[in-house]
Amino acid sequence: MAELVGNLLVGQSGGPTAVINSSIAGVVSEALNHSCIEEIYGGLNGVLGILNEEFIDLASESQQTIRGLRYTPGAALGTCRYKLKKQADFDRVIEVFKAHNIRYFFYAGGNDSQDTADKISKLAQEQGWEMRVIGVPKTIDNDLVSTDHCPGYGSVIKHISTIVRELSCDHQAMGQGDLVSILEVMGRSAGWIAAGAALAKRRDHPHDPPHIILLPEVPFDNDKFLEDVRRVLKREKFCLVVVGEGLVDKDGNYVATAEGTDAFGHAQLGGAGEFLASLVDQGIPGVKSRAVKLGIAQRAAAVGASKADSDEAFMAGQAAVKAAVAGENDKCVILVRGDTEQYSCETALVPLSEIANGVKMLPKEWINEDGISMNFQFHRYALPLIQGEVQVPFENGLPAFVKLDKVTVEKLLQTYEI
Amino acid sequence: MAELVGNLLVGQSGGPTAVINSSIAGVVSEALNHSCIEEIYGGLNGVLGILNEEFIDLASESQQTIRGLRYTPGAALGTCRYKLKKQADFDRVIEVFKAHNIRYFFYAGGNDSQDTADKISKLAQEQGWEMRVIGVPKTIDNDLVSTDHCPGYGSVIKHISTIVRELSCDHQAMGQGDLVSILEVMGRSAGWIAAGAALAKRRDHPHDPPHIILLPEVPFDNDKFLEDVRRVLKREKFCLVVVGEGLVDKDGNYVATAEGTDAFGHAQLGGAGEFLASLVDQGIPGVKSRAVKLGIAQRAAAVGASKADSDEAFMAGQAAVKAAVAGENDKCVILVRGDTEQYSCETALVPLSEIANGVKMLPKEWINEDGISMNFQFHRYALPLIQGEVQVPFENGLPAFVKLDKVTVEKLLQTYEI
Repeated sequence: MAELVGNLLVGQSGGPTAVINSSIAGVVSEALNHSCIEEIYGGLNGVLGILNEEFIDLASESQQTIRGLRYTPGAALGTCRYKLKKQADFDRVIEVFKAHNIRYFFYAGGNDSQDTADKISKLAQEQGWEMRVIGVPKTIDNDLVSTDHCPGYGSVIKHISTIVRELSCDHQAMGQGDLVSILEVMGRSAGWIAAGAALAKRRDHPHDPPHIILLPEVPFDNDKFLEDVRRVLKREKFCLVVVGEGLVDKDGNYVATAEGTDAFGHAQLGGAGEFLASLVDQGIPGVKSRAVKLGIAQRAAAVGASKADSDEAFMAGQAAVKAAVAGENDKCVILVRGDTEQYSCETALVPLSEIANGVKMLPKEWINEDGISMNFQFHRYALPLIQGEVQVPFENGLPAFVKLDKVTVEKLLQTYEI
Repeated sequence: MAELVGNLLVGQSGGPTAVINSSIAGVVSEALNHSCIEEIYGGLNGVLGILNEEFIDLASESQQTIRGLRYTPGAALGTCRYKLKKQADFDRVIEVFKAHNIRYFFYAGGNDSQDTADKISKLAQEQGWEMRVIGVPKTIDNDLVSTDHCPGYGSVIKHISTIVRELSCDHQAMGQGDLVSILEVMGRSAGWIAAGAALAKRRDHPHDPPHIILLPEVPFDNDKFLEDVRRVLKREKFCLVVVGEGLVDKDGNYVATAEGTDAFGHAQLGGAGEFLASLVDQGIPGVKSRAVKLGIAQRAAAVGASKADSDEAFMAGQAAVKAAVAGENDKCVILVRGDTEQYSCETALVPLSEIANGVKMLPKEWINEDGISMNFQFHRYALPLIQGEVQVPFENGLPAFVKLDKVTVEKLLQTYEI
C-alpha cells in the first residue's frame, strides 16, 4: 500500500474521564514516529471544532505538556455532546478535512462518538477523500461492546473503591448499627461503576463494605432493600450502600425522578442516593442515613487514578496511530485481555460500526443470587484494572495539572452556520 | 514535683478526621519514652468506653500498626457523641480511673470533647485523685479558639481544593458558559471549610475556580446569587460554586431544611448544594446545574491528605504526653504559628476551659467585599496547612489502612447502666 502523507487530527468527545488525555498523549507521541504524518492537529470540542475549523497545533506543545496529559483529568482539547445531524454537517466535515489535508483522524469517545467517526469515515470513502479514521475507546461507563474493558473505567472504580475503604474507616469509628451510609455513583444504563465498588471488599472478609450494591440490572424493591439494610445493621456497625444513579423499579422506571434528557435523548439522572436515604429515614426509625453524591467529581478524580488504566489509555492512542499508518480505516481500537493467569492487555481492531451503537451490559451471572453483591468472576475481571497509582505531581500543596498552549491553526474556509 | 507513676488512657471523640489517628500515634510513640507511664490503654468510643470500662492495650499493638495510624482515616479507637450528663456519669469515670490506676488521660476532640475533659479533670482534683488530663485538638471545622488552626482542617481543605482543581479540568472541557457546578462541603456554623476551597485559585489567575464561595458568615440572597452566577457565566466556560452546608439567609435561617439535631443540640444539615442547583434551574433557564455532595467522604479522605496536617496532629499527641509528664494538668494543646515569613508551627498549652465552649469564627476581614471570595490574608493563613502529601501505601490497587488488634484490658468493676 502506498504511504498516505498528510496531516493528523485528533479529537475528544462525550464526558471527560481521568485518563482520556492519556490517549491524546499516546496519539501525539506515536505520531511523532511517523514521517508520513506532517502536522499534528487537535480539534477543539469534538465535532464542533471540526465544523468550526477550530484546530490547534499539538506538535508545538512542549514535551512536558504532552507528558502531563497522562495525569491531567478532563478533556484537554475540549469535548461536546453535539451530534452531527444533517447531511450538510457531514459534508462540512469532509470539506474541512480536505482544506487542511487531514488524512488521519482519531476520535476518542464512547459509542455515540464512534458512530460519528464511522459515518465520517464512510462519507470520506464515498467522496473519494482518502483518509484513515480510527476510534479510541473511552468511557467510565465501561459499556462499549467488543473491548474487554474501556479506558476510564479502571480509574473510576479505583476511586470509588478507595472512598469505600476510607468511609469504612470512618464508619467503624461511629456508634453501633445505627448508620446507613449511601454512596451514589454514576452509571446510566449499566451497573458497571456501582459493581466496581465491590473491589473494596476483601475476598475473605465478609464484614467488609460495601454491604449492599444496587445495580440497574436488578429491579429495585423498597421492602427488600429495607430488609437487607436491617439484616446488615444487626450484624455490622454500619451499613454502607453503593447505588448507581440509574436504579430502576420492577417496571423499569427510574426510582429517582429524571430531570430531563441530554442531546442524545438519554435521561439525565440524579438523586438515587437521597431517595434511598429518605426511604431509610421513613422505614427504619432511629437510624441515621447519610448520602454522598460524587457526581462529576468521580470522573475527574486523577489523584489516585489507576496506572493500569492510564497506561492502557495511552497505549490505545498509540495503537490507533500505528493502525492508521499501517493502512487501517474505519476501525476502533479495543483492549484484549491475554488468556494467561497473569493479567496482560493488548490492543486489537474492530469495525467502528461494531462499537458504534452497541451497549455491553454487566453480565448477570457475575451478580450473586442475593442481588446486592458481586461474585469472584467480577473480582477476577475488575481487579487488574485498578492496579498501580498515577503519580500526579503536586505544587504548593495542590495537583499541578497541565493546560495546552493551544496555538491556533489558521482557518482556511468560510464560517459555517451550525 | 514528684514523678506521677501510673497508667495512660487515650480516647477520641466527635467526628473522625483524616488525621486524628495520627494524634493517637503521637501519644503512643511519646508515651514509650517515659518510664513513669506504665500501661498504655486506649479507651473505645470516647467517654462511652470509660463508662463501660472498655479499654484496649495499645502497647501490644505492633510498631507497624502504630505507624500506620499516621495515614489511616477515621478514629481507630472509635468515637462517640455521648455527652456525660449526670453526676453519676462523672463519678463513674473517676471510679474507673482509680480502678485502672489511670494517671494520664488524653482526649482528642473538638470543643464539646474538651469540655468533657475539663470537667473530668476538675472532678478528679475535687476527689483527690491525682492525675493529668490534657486535651488534643481535633476538628475539620477549624473552629477551636486559641489554637492557630486545628489538626484535621488542613487535610479537608487540601482535599476539597484538589477536587476543585480536578473539576476545573473537567469543566474546561465542556461547552461554553452553560454549566453551574456546585460543590457542597461541611461546615456547621463557620465557613472555614468552604473558604479553604479558595486555595485552588492561583493568586494571579482571576479565571480560576472556585468562582463563588458561599459562607455562613455572609447572609445568602437568592437574587444576588443568581446575579453572581450570570456574571461568571458571561466571563467563563462554567461557574463553579462551593457552598458550606450551614448557609443561612438574612434572618439566620438555614437555606436548606434542617433534618434534626445531634446529641449536643446542633442542627444536622444537608442539601444546600441541591437547593442551589434547583435555584439555578429555575432562575437561569437553559443552564445545566450539577451538584456534588462530598458528605462524610471529605473528612475520611486520607489519600492526598496534607502531610503538614498529619505531622502536626502527631506532634500535638506527642506534646500532650510531654506536657502531662512535666506536670501539666487540665490543659489543651494548641498549635502556635511562628512569626517568621517561613511557616513554622509549635505547640503550647491553654486551660481546657478556654477551648471548651468557644467557637472561632472565620475572620470577616478575610472575606472580600464581593462576599464570595477570600483575600490574600486567608491564603497566607491557609496555604501552609496543605503542604505535602501523606503517602498512603496501596496494596493490590487499594489503600492498605491499618486496624488495631484491640487486645482488651480486663474489666475490674461492675457493669454501669448508662
